[in-house]
Amino acid sequence: MKVGIVGLGLIGGSLGLDLRSQGITVLGVSRRPSTCQIAQHRGVVDEASMELASLKTADVIFICTPLTAIAPTVEQLIPFLSPHTILTDVGSVKQSIAAACSSLWPNFVGGHPMAGTAEQGIDAAQHQLFAGAPYVLTPLPTTPTEALQPVEHLARSLGSKIYTCSPEIHDRAVALISHLPLLVSAGLIETCLGESDLKVLQLAKQLASSGFRDTSRVGGGNPELGVAIARYNREQVLRSLYHYRQTLERLIEQIEEEQWEELEQILQSTQSARPDFLQDEAVE
Amino acid sequence: MKVGIVGLGLIGGSLGLDLRSQGITVLGVSRRPSTCQIAQHRGVVDEASMELASLKTADVIFICTPLTAIAPTVEQLIPFLSPHTILTDVGSVKQSIAAACSSLWPNFVGGHPMAGTAEQGIDAAQHQLFAGAPYVLTPLPTTPTEALQPVEHLARSLGSKIYTCSPEIHDRAVALISHLPLLVSAGLIETCLGESDLKVLQLAKQLASSGFRDTSRVGGGNPELGVAIARYNREQVLRSLYHYRQTLERLIEQIEEEQWEELEQILQSTQSARPDFLQDEAVE
Repeated sequence: MKVGIVGLGLIGGSLGLDLRSQGITVLGVSRRPSTCQIAQHRGVVDEASMELASLKTADVIFICTPLTAIAPTVEQLIPFLSPHTILTDVGSVKQSIAAACSSLWPNFVGGHPMAGTAEQGIDAAQHQLFAGAPYVLTPLPTTPTEALQPVEHLARSLGSKIYTCSPEIHDRAVALISHLPLLVSAGLIETCLGESDLKVLQLAKQLASSGFRDTSRVGGGNPELGVAIARYNREQVLRSLYHYRQTLERLIEQIEEEQWEELEQILQSTQSARPDFLQDEAVE
Repeated sequence: MKVGIVGLGLIGGSLGLDLRSQGITVLGVSRRPSTCQIAQHRGVVDEASMELASLKTADVIFICTPLTAIAPTVEQLIPFLSPHTILTDVGSVKQSIAAACSSLWPNFVGGHPMAGTAEQGIDAAQHQLFAGAPYVLTPLPTTPTEALQPVEHLARSLGSKIYTCSPEIHDRAVALISHLPLLVSAGLIETCLGESDLKVLQLAKQLASSGFRDTSRVGGGNPELGVAIARYNREQVLRSLYHYRQTLERLIEQIEEEQWEELEQILQSTQSARPDFLQDEAVE
């Protein structure tokens, strides 16, 4: 089997390392000559090229570009594909991408390996990045089984935990546990920055400790990533923000009305429920 | 010098260990006989008692009880105090406590050592808990210098970083960086629990990872503590929640209106500002 990878960053590069170690031939494409050189030097790919045409013999092609480039890449690949070539992506949002890409190429299977590190780029690529981490596949009702099965097989070979669901279910779930936390967390930092009393702001900066550090971490991350998730998962992000706004209103009302028992009930339920979300935890 | 400590939990116990190692005589009071035994056995105090009367020779008394018990403890101590005895507390909220306790006992100095561990109780007491951590003192304009100075001296002897400000400035600052994060974080978990689509909720639990773990940590903590901060710092907690609600509305509007440049500006400012809050970081 030959696998093509478009985009040799952390995800594309790590994918190449694992697949090559299984004896699969990996053809890589990057826009940057330096990335192609590093990829070949590190053994991430068998061959690297700046031309999508170099992937014409690949059986399965993983599109590992930023979200904005996924559908355009499918479009540019089409002239070089045989009718049986399978395309899949690794984007963190699935509804808009699965719809766009499947209409361009029926043998498209949306995917989302939920692995990562703080580092980015080909230099951060590593073996076993996906082992033990979730890998969500989001086929449409029209997606051929012949396209789904090889992608699932490859994802499983990485040691990932496979979940299969509709793009909409995926996007709602990640809106709740990944995109909402980012915005909630950014809102916290922004609220502190908006403090008009400079004495308070200065003391707040001096006193901030582990509680602030953890709650603000994802809101202090890459701004482009934050915009991309809001943009590409806009509908589900708004849905989760509307629900969050309702929860916030409830908390405010309970404190305004001094409904301490009701507040304690909520805090008891959040305390007892949190571990349910962390049972299957893997490195993000 | 003789120091009294009422409440021999993590904070009171750790205080005893550090003060005794400086050669100060430490008299401890706990409601529970077993805590008194452990405190003496571990060398946390020179003498332990269940009676507040045992503190009548103390020069400075640290009240290390839960927030609700601080003012009542001051009241119960009064019959046993000489006019020069200095009282101080370690509560995480200062405005209501400083007002109540100073009117009961003019030689009262509000204090808040911002140190802690995940563990609670006398068994968790440790040397050097306060070293490098902030210790906020909140004297009123009426607080005598003769009361403030010995407390400041003792706090400094623990290796703490001393900050002095009004109770109101303290409460606003901790509302922003400690109490608001707790409620924002609890709101996140509660919103996820409110997901009506059970498929989405199940997948969310399976996919939740480090971003959710960190953002939800303080919201999944001790419910009594959450209620106590909302209750005792109600005014400033509400103030921070109102500001947070405004920020959330702005984020929602930007996503609704697809104002991606404006959203990116916010996320850039949160990214660049976050390190300012973590420069002086100590263990909470």
